[in-house]
Amino acid sequence: MEDLKNMIQTQFNVSFRNDSLLEEAFTHSSYVNEHRQLQLKHNERVEYLGDAVLEVVVSEFLFHHYPEWNEGKLTRLRAQIVCEPSLAAFAKECSFDQFIRLGKGEERMNGRKRPALLCDLFEAFIGALFLDQGMPAAKDFIYRVVLSKIKEDAFSHAMDYKTLLQEELQKDGDIQIKYQTVLEEGPSHAKHFEVAVFVNGDVLGRGSGTSKKSAEQNAAQMALNKSLKK
Amino acid sequence: MEDLKNMIQTQFNVSFRNDSLLEEAFTHSSYVNEHRQLQLKHNERVEYLGDAVLEVVVSEFLFHHYPEWNEGKLTRLRAQIVCEPSLAAFAKECSFDQFIRLGKGEERMNGRKRPALLCDLFEAFIGALFLDQGMPAAKDFIYRVVLSKIKEDAFSHAMDYKTLLQEELQKDGDIQIKYQTVLEEGPSHAKHFEVAVFVNGDVLGRGSGTSKKSAEQNAAQMALNKSLKK
Repeated sequence: MEDLKNMIQTQFNVSFRNDSLLEEAFTHSSYVNEHRQLQLKHNERVEYLGDAVLEVVVSEFLFHHYPEWNEGKLTRLRAQIVCEPSLAAFAKECSFDQFIRLGKGEERMNGRKRPALLCDLFEAFIGALFLDQGMPAAKDFIYRVVLSKIKEDAFSHAMDYKTLLQEELQKDGDIQIKYQTVLEEGPSHAKHFEVAVFVNGDVLGRGSGTSKKSAEQNAAQMALNKSLKK
Repeated sequence: MEDLKNMIQTQFNVSFRNDSLLEEAFTHSSYVNEHRQLQLKHNERVEYLGDAVLEVVVSEFLFHHYPEWNEGKLTRLRAQIVCEPSLAAFAKECSFDQFIRLGKGEERMNGRKRPALLCDLFEAFIGALFLDQGMPAAKDFIYRVVLSKIKEDAFSHAMDYKTLLQEELQKDGDIQIKYQTVLEEGPSHAKHFEVAVFVNGDVLGRGSGTSKKSAEQNAAQMALNKSLKK
């Protein structure tokens, strides 16, 4: 526990007022079950809270950071950030995996490396931090560990709908995808484009935008949504 | 727009600093599409944000309000509160439906009464309020309109897992559900119960608790989760 406190202090410059919250975040239910007599709390309640705190902080950041994006794009990028593999990677990056208390069975089953467990741990820490020091401290931490990577566009690959559409459709074998500009109007400083995406000759999506590129992305997004619903 | 401002002022004692945010929240995409020349914003971006704000406020409230509940119960009650029918009902209760700007087609199709549209509108208002006046104002509004009802236990029916399990299983025809106490130990001030729930003779869930009632509820919850996953 002292090691954990020191690590959090050194790495994130955070001192918990209530140590038991920090302890709770780093205690897995398997550990609690093996030590019933200690009456410990496991991290699932703080994880429930941390999940919502992370979501609102990421949502707000993306809202301001991408003022031109529609809610579909925002939601999609948020899902790429707040997903199990990403959060598990953040937990490891923060060395949280070295400090979680696991039951023996869970340890033997390599629980310490299990993405779901690490993801929950990351959210649990955020929940505990939020409870101990409020939203500003939680925001600081999330900015530092998570959102700084968005600025570097580490997630931007996720937003290329043309690529995503191609990947999705090619699952079902070879396929021909063609983008066609069906409308181009307006003066040069206020252009409006409309693009249709043809899949094997049929229109699967349409999109508009102030550039051909963004119209194509929007058309691909619509087509992708349609194919995912099939 | 003046009517809307007055209503918000009178009913919730809130004056928007930036009126265009309020306008955005009450503008449906169908209206924007019919008035392209006005270059209006529709409410989907602020709805994306409001959704996350609502979620974190409700999560935090439930976390503190039910300190003994596990995350499964908390998540379940949250889902009952933050769901389309509930939020649509709140939107109507606030008379928001009278103020949203819809396209003619949407109006003809009774969009003004559509739960999904009203739910989005409610979240959009929360998003706009959050942007205009920050988290405390958003919290106040959510406490007043949503969380005050939790105190009155308006959602408590949702938490009766025994009833929910019965409803779920009876979808597939007649079924026999039996709860059996398999363990009862500890002194009278610190009892520990374990209960198994049998469905047509097979154990479908187990639960423990400090009372028979809570052990039964936990067993029913486990069984319900299992049957929902099928």
